[in-house]
Amino acid sequence: MKELSRDDLDDIHKFAVQLGKYAGQMLMQAARLRTGDTAAPQQQQQEHVQKANAVDLVTETDENIEAYIKSQITSKYPAHNFVGEESYSKGSSREYLIDDAPTWCIDPLDGTVNYIHLFPMYCVSIAFIYKSKPVVGVINAPFLNQFFSSCAGRGAFLNETQPLPLIRNPVPPMPAKAPSGCVFSCEWGKDRKDIPDGNLHRKVESFVNMAAEIGGRDGKGGMVHGVRSLGSATLDLAYVAMGSFDIWWEAGCWEWDVAAGIAILQEAGGLVTTANPPENIETSPIDEVRLGSRLYLAIRPAGESKDETGRQGQERTVREVWKRVRRLDYSRPGA
Amino acid sequence: MKELSRDDLDDIHKFAVQLGKYAGQMLMQAARLRTGDTAAPQQQQQEHVQKANAVDLVTETDENIEAYIKSQITSKYPAHNFVGEESYSKGSSREYLIDDAPTWCIDPLDGTVNYIHLFPMYCVSIAFIYKSKPVVGVINAPFLNQFFSSCAGRGAFLNETQPLPLIRNPVPPMPAKAPSGCVFSCEWGKDRKDIPDGNLHRKVESFVNMAAEIGGRDGKGGMVHGVRSLGSATLDLAYVAMGSFDIWWEAGCWEWDVAAGIAILQEAGGLVTTANPPENIETSPIDEVRLGSRLYLAIRPAGESKDETGRQGQERTVREVWKRVRRLDYSRPGA
Repeated sequence: MKELSRDDLDDIHKFAVQLGKYAGQMLMQAARLRTGDTAAPQQQQQEHVQKANAVDLVTETDENIEAYIKSQITSKYPAHNFVGEESYSKGSSREYLIDDAPTWCIDPLDGTVNYIHLFPMYCVSIAFIYKSKPVVGVINAPFLNQFFSSCAGRGAFLNETQPLPLIRNPVPPMPAKAPSGCVFSCEWGKDRKDIPDGNLHRKVESFVNMAAEIGGRDGKGGMVHGVRSLGSATLDLAYVAMGSFDIWWEAGCWEWDVAAGIAILQEAGGLVTTANPPENIETSPIDEVRLGSRLYLAIRPAGESKDETGRQGQERTVREVWKRVRRLDYSRPGA
Repeated sequence: MKELSRDDLDDIHKFAVQLGKYAGQMLMQAARLRTGDTAAPQQQQQEHVQKANAVDLVTETDENIEAYIKSQITSKYPAHNFVGEESYSKGSSREYLIDDAPTWCIDPLDGTVNYIHLFPMYCVSIAFIYKSKPVVGVINAPFLNQFFSSCAGRGAFLNETQPLPLIRNPVPPMPAKAPSGCVFSCEWGKDRKDIPDGNLHRKVESFVNMAAEIGGRDGKGGMVHGVRSLGSATLDLAYVAMGSFDIWWEAGCWEWDVAAGIAILQEAGGLVTTANPPENIETSPIDEVRLGSRLYLAIRPAGESKDETGRQGQERTVREVWKRVRRLDYSRPGA
């Protein structure tokens, strides 16, 4: 396999942007068929609504969009690998499949529950991964009119014009008392088993530690500025890249949920590492996230303060989060 | 005071819509000054950024917008009362002030924490209240390009064209096993005191009951489809009116946080009552919310099923929520 050049990467980025735009239109069109929106042809609309329940309709949309994206990619880049949420989920293995080869990693519809209920926080997510790193990311949230994109070395953007993070002259440093002053984004997820010390209870204990007043929770109270849950890992990462969320902590999601978001966030200057605190929180090196690890802690792009560099502020914040969260159990083969 | 006619109300609605549009522009313009957006005049931008910290900037925006809205209202409707978040908060009383007289109830910026961090979930909220009922509501979330409006008897709309709820041919009934199948919206709020059985812990206990698997939590597990926290009570209500959120349960917010949202939700066919379960959950009448009560439980517009009317489905859902949530303590004088 020959090395990809700068031009190759720029072409891939351009192609991914067009793909994301069209896939977003498909998604929005399918959503309109479920509403009383008069823009949708009425006959088509009635057929659609009468057909089946919302979940079936959404599954159909999901599969159609992935099939479209896959056909476009395999026609343009037949030598590239393809990992898509829909096709992967139908397989029996849960192994991590991405290696150093050029690979597209796609979620045709992230935020499926939101889409079923027509809550606007859903999106198409398209990532291109090279040498095991997400280097191109495209996220299209059509109901929000928000389109995020990035290409390694070329910057990350909202709607192709606004550079990320949004506040950038200068980019604010991490708050001195982080997580206090931070917006903390987290998700309840699908694992709702009421098992003592199971993932649900460990998550909630972590959320409460982050939220509680300073001095509370036996010193673990983080008094974050706000706690947010959107129901879309992809958009959580996009908002960390925007600088809107300071911290995102989540586990259990898959590479297609995060690959495009990680590409965009890293290009914007953010840090992504593991959700699970290591044994020695204060001194452990802060490794780059492993894409298939299912354990994610993301920190927004940060500027320098008089006392530290942006990276130092991010690492300080990582350690402060690790002090307050529990280890979660989401293992998988091959990752 | 003479009675308001149908025409009077329509005029008030038209005026409120214009007011909401302009106020939303002001909000977005102030936001742009804080970003690297090249649409903002550079000199103005630099002055703005150098001026002070984000919180001061936001307070200034908040006050400017409320002053603008108030001046427009008092010039057009000098006989009407005015309750605004900014002006109210500066007074020392926390008494509920709205009576049967025509009253405007305004939040120039709901979702302040979001706005500080430039997370798009913030909005202007304008309600007109007559005979103690919110009858006109306007919510403008300019960063989301979402504009919600309603007038009693005239319907509720997204962006003035899409009737609410969005899914309406027919409007889906409440799920048979609600809260299972429902998107549950809730907020962590500002009361983070780590007091045993304090509001924070009662809230979290309620959230976990709603989220946990069926059969878990000693039978209280609600297995909701998703848990969402946006950080804006106003937008939470708007999304309940859209039908995106099935249930919103929250306490501690004030009348300007909810008045416009309640107007829109009720006009769309939703139900709003108290967050606090009564003594007899199964048989207690489900009273309409008191605007100043600071305790809110909202259910989305619901269609009929073969077994029950939409209202019956909503009431069933209210009781199922009450079974799973704790009573919260947010008393106030005069309400």
